[in-house]
Amino acid sequence: MSRKYPSTLLENAVNELASLPGVGRKTALRLALYMLRRDVEYTENFASALLDLRRDVQYCKVCHNICDDETCAICADTNRDHSLVCVVENIKEVMAIENTGQFRGVYHVLGGIISPIDGIGPGDLEIDSLIRRVASGEVKEVILALSTTMEGDTTNFFIYRKLAAYDVKVSVIARGVSIGDEIEYADEITLGRSILNRTSFNDSIKI
Amino acid sequence: MSRKYPSTLLENAVNELASLPGVGRKTALRLALYMLRRDVEYTENFASALLDLRRDVQYCKVCHNICDDETCAICADTNRDHSLVCVVENIKEVMAIENTGQFRGVYHVLGGIISPIDGIGPGDLEIDSLIRRVASGEVKEVILALSTTMEGDTTNFFIYRKLAAYDVKVSVIARGVSIGDEIEYADEITLGRSILNRTSFNDSIKI
Repeated sequence: MSRKYPSTLLENAVNELASLPGVGRKTALRLALYMLRRDVEYTENFASALLDLRRDVQYCKVCHNICDDETCAICADTNRDHSLVCVVENIKEVMAIENTGQFRGVYHVLGGIISPIDGIGPGDLEIDSLIRRVASGEVKEVILALSTTMEGDTTNFFIYRKLAAYDVKVSVIARGVSIGDEIEYADEITLGRSILNRTSFNDSIKI
Repeated sequence: MSRKYPSTLLENAVNELASLPGVGRKTALRLALYMLRRDVEYTENFASALLDLRRDVQYCKVCHNICDDETCAICADTNRDHSLVCVVENIKEVMAIENTGQFRGVYHVLGGIISPIDGIGPGDLEIDSLIRRVASGEVKEVILALSTTMEGDTTNFFIYRKLAAYDVKVSVIARGVSIGDEIEYADEITLGRSILNRTSFNDSIKI
């Protein structure tokens, strides 16, 4: 539907807002009108927070997590186990795993996963720097925590092959029926794998 | 859920994005990370479009519609019928009615409706300027096109009472069963009113 906007300033703002993923033109118009109802400072703070993020954000030189300094708080934490490296796709997964409070190792953020359909190859990801971390001899175990998709499995396998030359344990996070899920509603592949990869009952009650 | 952000710049940006209506913290994080994946110019254009809108937007001195000049394109259009004024709540309704292509009069944007629960009284709306437009003698008919809610009805009645002193026709947009709706699913109040306010079949086939 073509819409006529009463002001080009409004139209430009709607165009920019609608360029965000998941934001349609109707929502964009609602957001633009919301800003007009708030005072000028609101939009100024809004705009400068986004500009500051985009212009001044840094990436940890060790794990490529987002941070405010050269090294992120996790890599700088001497209480964490730096020999245990969890490989994730993006910083969202770092935040999700940190929120579990179950992991005391460090991370390696790939910045994506191998996806030929999107034109993303191994060279576009931080895989070489992962190999260098392992080659330095400090890493004892690499945990692959990528999505269970074809792209995730491809990336897992690529990294696994690259790491085969080094004396390092490579593991993947456990796949199985989610806690709280009813067995009859679990999908067949997950349920099948959860039977193949069953754990000792003694181990399971320790958690 | 409390989330720890790896960067205060990221946290600030997420806070600002999540302050928008309908945007939660998860969506805000996704939008912030999207901006980090795009080049710097993207965020700069985004921020300046919003700032330009908020700082430079003007409101038409006649109808209070958003515009780029002192008078909006609709009020400046001499081909339109300036004796026919459609009263709406906001500029979204102006755009919706303009999109129908059925209206060749002009508008009057109230900037809200009377809502005691939100602390909005008649003095907060552009009602006085509507009365002045009518008092000038140029307006022959005022069409009230507000929402069919208690607040809309209250505002309609308030304006109707204020205009009683002037020689002007006051009408409201037709209420009835939507075109394409099946009668059996129409709500009782709408259906009842559509029978009371029935129109001549001859009139209905002209449209």
